[in-house]
Amino acid sequence: MNKVNLDAAFATFTERWSPHTVAALNDYEVKLAKVCGGFVWHTHEQTDELFLVLHGELTIRLRDREVLLRAGELFIVPSGVEHQPFAAQEAHILLLEPTGTLNTGDRPAG
Amino acid sequence: MNKVNLDAAFATFTERWSPHTVAALNDYEVKLAKVCGGFVWHTHEQTDELFLVLHGELTIRLRDREVLLRAGELFIVPSGVEHQPFAAQEAHILLLEPTGTLNTGDRPAG
Repeated sequence: MNKVNLDAAFATFTERWSPHTVAALNDYEVKLAKVCGGFVWHTHEQTDELFLVLHGELTIRLRDREVLLRAGELFIVPSGVEHQPFAAQEAHILLLEPTGTLNTGDRPAG
Repeated sequence: MNKVNLDAAFATFTERWSPHTVAALNDYEVKLAKVCGGFVWHTHEQTDELFLVLHGELTIRLRDREVLLRAGELFIVPSGVEHQPFAAQEAHILLLEPTGTLNTGDRPAG
């Protein structure tokens, strides 16, 4: 594989809440996403999910608390824990999760 | 879990080539390491290994080429590929690999 420059990879897309896979590690994928506003509440029953903020701020809303992540901070949402990512302004984040994980978790699409 | 501030986590140790686990994702671990100089040539036969440079520069020497990583760049060494991390000056890196992976790979200790 080739190396991935994160800034250069972010420059290739503008869509929000649309994770772009930039690398694979065994059966996991490294994804980059631009996010702004609130995403749907959802749960991944089968997997933990890693969020690393690279630019801006991201709040991970949990049912009992909120976790504010600034650039250079990471958080892992444990499997089975309902959460809602929220960003007041556009943030750039790195996600890591098993290949095939849907960003809406176990919530039916549509 | 609590969030991890990467700069704060790096400030807790000074040893080089001694990965510190800061978070777990399923059966994977997120590790931080300060590196300087050259590490041993080694191979992980069973797993890929992710390197993300957070500060400084890291060269991943492969037998047929070198990959220079600057801050904000990541590279995944495929399983079975011999490699030697090298940093001319201290660099701060994030590693991701399955729990139990040794940093010397399949090379016997000692």
